[in-house]
This record gives sequence, C-alpha cells and structure tokens, in this order.
Amino acid sequence: MGDRFYMQLALDEAWKYQLLTYPNPAVGAVVVKDGAILSIEAHQKAGTSHAEVLALLSAYETLSQTTIDFDRFDAQKAHEFLRQLPNDFFSSCSIYVTLEPCAHRGKTPSCAMLLQYLRLKAVIVGMKDPIAGHGGGVEIIRSGSNVPIVKTGVLEDACKALLEPFLLWQERAFVLFKLAQTTNGRIGGGYLSSKESLRHVHRLRSVCDRLLIGGNTVRVDRPTLDCRFVGALPPNVTIYSKSETFDSEIPLFGIEGREVTITQKLDFLDKPSFILVEGGEGMLNALQGHIDWLLIYQTPKLSSNELSYNIDMNLTFLHQRNIGVDLMIWSRQLGN
Amino acid sequence: MGDRFYMQLALDEAWKYQLLTYPNPAVGAVVVKDGAILSIEAHQKAGTSHAEVLALLSAYETLSQTTIDFDRFDAQKAHEFLRQLPNDFFSSCSIYVTLEPCAHRGKTPSCAMLLQYLRLKAVIVGMKDPIAGHGGGVEIIRSGSNVPIVKTGVLEDACKALLEPFLLWQERAFVLFKLAQTTNGRIGGGYLSSKESLRHVHRLRSVCDRLLIGGNTVRVDRPTLDCRFVGALPPNVTIYSKSETFDSEIPLFGIEGREVTITQKLDFLDKPSFILVEGGEGMLNALQGHIDWLLIYQTPKLSSNELSYNIDMNLTFLHQRNIGVDLMIWSRQLGN
Repeated sequence: MGDRFYMQLALDEAWKYQLLTYPNPAVGAVVVKDGAILSIEAHQKAGTSHAEVLALLSAYETLSQTTIDFDRFDAQKAHEFLRQLPNDFFSSCSIYVTLEPCAHRGKTPSCAMLLQYLRLKAVIVGMKDPIAGHGGGVEIIRSGSNVPIVKTGVLEDACKALLEPFLLWQERAFVLFKLAQTTNGRIGGGYLSSKESLRHVHRLRSVCDRLLIGGNTVRVDRPTLDCRFVGALPPNVTIYSKSETFDSEIPLFGIEGREVTITQKLDFLDKPSFILVEGGEGMLNALQGHIDWLLIYQTPKLSSNELSYNIDMNLTFLHQRNIGVDLMIWSRQLGN
Repeated sequence: MGDRFYMQLALDEAWKYQLLTYPNPAVGAVVVKDGAILSIEAHQKAGTSHAEVLALLSAYETLSQTTIDFDRFDAQKAHEFLRQLPNDFFSSCSIYVTLEPCAHRGKTPSCAMLLQYLRLKAVIVGMKDPIAGHGGGVEIIRSGSNVPIVKTGVLEDACKALLEPFLLWQERAFVLFKLAQTTNGRIGGGYLSSKESLRHVHRLRSVCDRLLIGGNTVRVDRPTLDCRFVGALPPNVTIYSKSETFDSEIPLFGIEGREVTITQKLDFLDKPSFILVEGGEGMLNALQGHIDWLLIYQTPKLSSNELSYNIDMNLTFLHQRNIGVDLMIWSRQLGN
C-alpha cells in the first residue's frame, strides 16, 4: 500500500476527534514497519499527548509486546518514556502525520525534536503547518544526525480540510451548525438521534466557547442544553432573540455556573472562538451568512410527520461515519 | 492490526461492486504477509475471476515486482497461472475473504481447490456459504496436505449484510429502490446527482433484470432510461401504471432491443431476479411493501425549491461512501 493509504487511516482517526481537540487542531498519526501497521492514533484533547506521541507509544507496545504503565495522555511522561528508549528502537518504522509535527514546546514538549531524536526511517507529513511562527518542524527533523526520509504534501487537500476549523478560529469564530434529521430531511421531532449521536453533541457542547440557540427553540423545546451524557460542565449559552422575555422555568436557565446571554447582535462572532449553533429552519436562515460547517446526524428513517426545512445552501461533504445507528455527515458551506 | 481490520478492508472493496456482480454475490478479499497488506480486491462481474483470485494475482505482482501480462479477469487463465507458481509461493501469506471460497467448478474453477493447492499460512473467512449445496469450501481447504489456519465468522454480520441481495434473489426478486436527493431530502429536480452517481445508476441498469418505473414519472419526466454513460445495453422496462396510454414519442419507447411492459400487477416480483425501481414519492409509497433496500445518492446541497417526499419507513444503514461530490448511502428497509 502507498503513502496515501496510510495517510487516509490517519485522517479517518483524526476525524473522530474533530473539534473535540479545541483549541488544538485535529491531527492523526499512523506508524508502519515493513508495510505492517503498528498503530493508528489521533490527538484527543488539548493539553494531552499529540497524535505522533500516542502513535509511537502504541507502536512501542506492539513491537515490545508489553503495555506501558503510565498515563499515555500525559505528554511530559510520554516524551520522557520515548526518549529513554534506544534511539534506534523505531529505526525501521515510518510515521504518517496529517500535520507537520510541532516545532516548539507549548503545553507539551516538541514533537519535531522527539522525532529528530528517535531517528525513524521516514516521516511523512500531510501538510506543513500554515500558521506563521508555528512551522519549522520538518526542518528540525531534517537537522538531526541521522536524517529520515521526509516527505510532505500527501493527501494535502484532505489534511487541509481536517485543519480548517483550527485555522478559522485563529482569526474569528468558527461556526458549526448542528442538525439532527431523518434521512428525508425532517427535523424537530425531539430526540431524533441515537444515544451515541447525543453523546457526541454533548462532547461538542463541553468544548465549545458558546452554544448559540434561537429564541423560538428555547420557547418551544424548553431545553436544558447541558453535557450530562458525558459528565462535563455545561456551555455558556447565547440566545439569539429580539425579545428578552423567557419563562425562567425553562431548564437551561437553572443550570449552575453557566452564563446566559440574550442578544440579537452577532458581533461576538468576530472574536476567535468555537461557536456551536443548535436550532431549526429559523436559525439556519438567520445564521446562513456565518455558518462555516454543517454537522448532520442523519437517522435511519424516513418520516412523513416531522418538519421539513427550507433553505438553499451549497455544501461540500468532508467526512462521514457511522455513529450508533446514525450517519454523521461533516460538510462545509460553499461560498461563505 | 487484527483480523477485523483486514476483513473491513475486504468488505469496503466488495461494496464498490455491490449488485454489479449480479447474479453472483459481492465478495471482497485481502492478502496480508507479516502484517503488510499486499492486495485488496473484489469480485467485479459475473463470469470473471473471483475476489480471492484477483487478490492473489495482485499479491503476486506485489511480491514479485512484476506485472502479469494476461487478462486477470479471465478466471481460467488466472487459475492456471496461480497453479503453476511454486506451491510455497504464498506460504507466508494470509487471505481474508468475506464469503467462504467456492467449492465447486461453475463458470470459473473452484477457489477452494486453488487455495488448498496454494498452501497459504491462513485463510480467514467472513461467513460460510449459507446456500444448500454451495458450501464445503472450508472443508476442501482443510483437507489439503499442508493445512493452513482456517478461521470463519470474522465480522460475520457485516459479511451477511453484504451477501443479503444474493440470498434474496435466489428465492424471489430483490428490489432496490434508487433515490437521488438533496441533503435535506428534496427530490425530483431532474439531474440532481454528480456524473459519477449517474454512471453508477447506468451500471445498475445494465445488470438488473428489469427497471420498474412509475407511470407518472414516465409522463412527466419523459425519460430515456438507457445506459449510455457506461456504453451498455438498455434494461427492459416495466411501467407501473393503471392506464396503458403513453405518448409514444417518450424516448424510452424508442430504444431498440428493449422490452417495455405496462402493468399494475407486481406478481413478477415472485420470480428470482434483480429489480431496480426508479421513481418518486408515488412509487415509494406504492412499492413500500416490496422494497428490500434503498440506495440514496445524496447531493451536497440544501434546497428550498425541489419536492419533499412523504413516507414513513425505518431503515438500517449498511454502507456509505463518496461518489463524485455525492454521498452514496445503502440501506435496508426494516420490518419488510
């Protein structure tokens, strides 16, 4: 199999954690030895081990037939562990990473410096880090005493699509509109989605800066908008509404430690952030000019009862996968 | 990577040719050596080489760094070629096949006997052949002088879903309803789909026994219903209609070598066959009790102009993949 095959595996793994790594980018990594896949991993949460590190730890376990006995998500410990291995341990391994390994020490040590030390056979990078001052990882790897084969630009367009939210939220709000629908595009029927889809929504809520929701949805659905399925803190909520009058008994107002704002101004979208929008036809139309991506949880049914929604919007499909019995479809709004 | 990983690759490859192998089953195969994937292949067309044979030929090419110079889809030649190799050529290889290799000589020689001769390290089978009189492949492989590891039942449920049409069309018509829609479930806007989706529809038309279409669609859309995008012969057409009166200038009537039937009786569905249904809301409702699978070509747009369709139907998603810019979603009707 060629480079593209392994990079696609890294991409698919990274998509499982898309946005959940906020404010970090989604990144996937695969370690291969003589054509055999030793590990497929992805960065899962900001502040924890990067994809390359998790993939190397998992490859170590495969090669040594042992299990590491420390928290693999503790980046400091993970780097220390990998650095005490003989530096030819991975010398017949190649690593595929969707994004150039980080050059500089942030919350975690530099992955590029680790890869320079470990002297792999090859480092294949999907795309160079496009953020000014962030790059240089490839140069560090190339500056070692035993330079691996370094290749960049494998499935570059797909790697760019994966990274897109990260680039947008550097500049302004990245706006994700979430929709749960039947396969014939009906919405609004309450709990349409599988438990797995609902858990995923709660994970997104737990990492976003702000949950934006329409006033009508609040009045009609009387939602709670917490993250109880994943045991996380509830997001701050902004209700997009002309009127500031709401029944204070609506559950979302009763959640402790949450800030609720009611506004008709969207200027907060100018601020670098991750905004999750939930709503129906009204919000979709009101926010159309601001929506970057649409995330659809599509349920395996056709319905004649629930509401259809009207809007014209061109999309690009970016990624899809099964989640419980549902289909999860990530798409980009075109021309926005 | 474990058995399930390789079997999934075989499954994904087989789905690319789902129904196109009619009247044969869709089957995928993967050859692996020391964890490295040598080939991923699928049966493509009835009467040509089976998945196992194509995967072994492709693995031979990878291992020998040569290219075979005969038609690999010619099963007779392919078997002869593989049988003249030293019978330890694949001795460190494992093969993953979604369906038990065929025991008996049909239009092509027996794959089980070939695998018995070739003495692979392991033969991993997704599911045993459930058709009475068809099985026995695994027993043949086990009866050789140098028996490989044989394992069955890997991702068995997924392998069963892949095989489902084949089992149904042994007994009666397998009915596939094809629908092209926007992502918000709008239909009927003429050429909704990508060129790649249209080509796929034409390939399905070229292998089905009969294309079933509603009288209204014929009157309103005035379709041609040929296979011009893939250069194949046009399917016979059955128009489901009370009235037998149609404008004879409608292009579908002008296609040479085609049989057109107009009927309101569906008793032809009792006959073992593959029936492709094209139509909109009316046909979906009229045929609901007969539809086995729904194939949706979902385009990357939301539309407020095109028609929504009303029906209640529970589905199971079976497989999805990108086709051009569209998403292709295979699903089973539940409770039918």
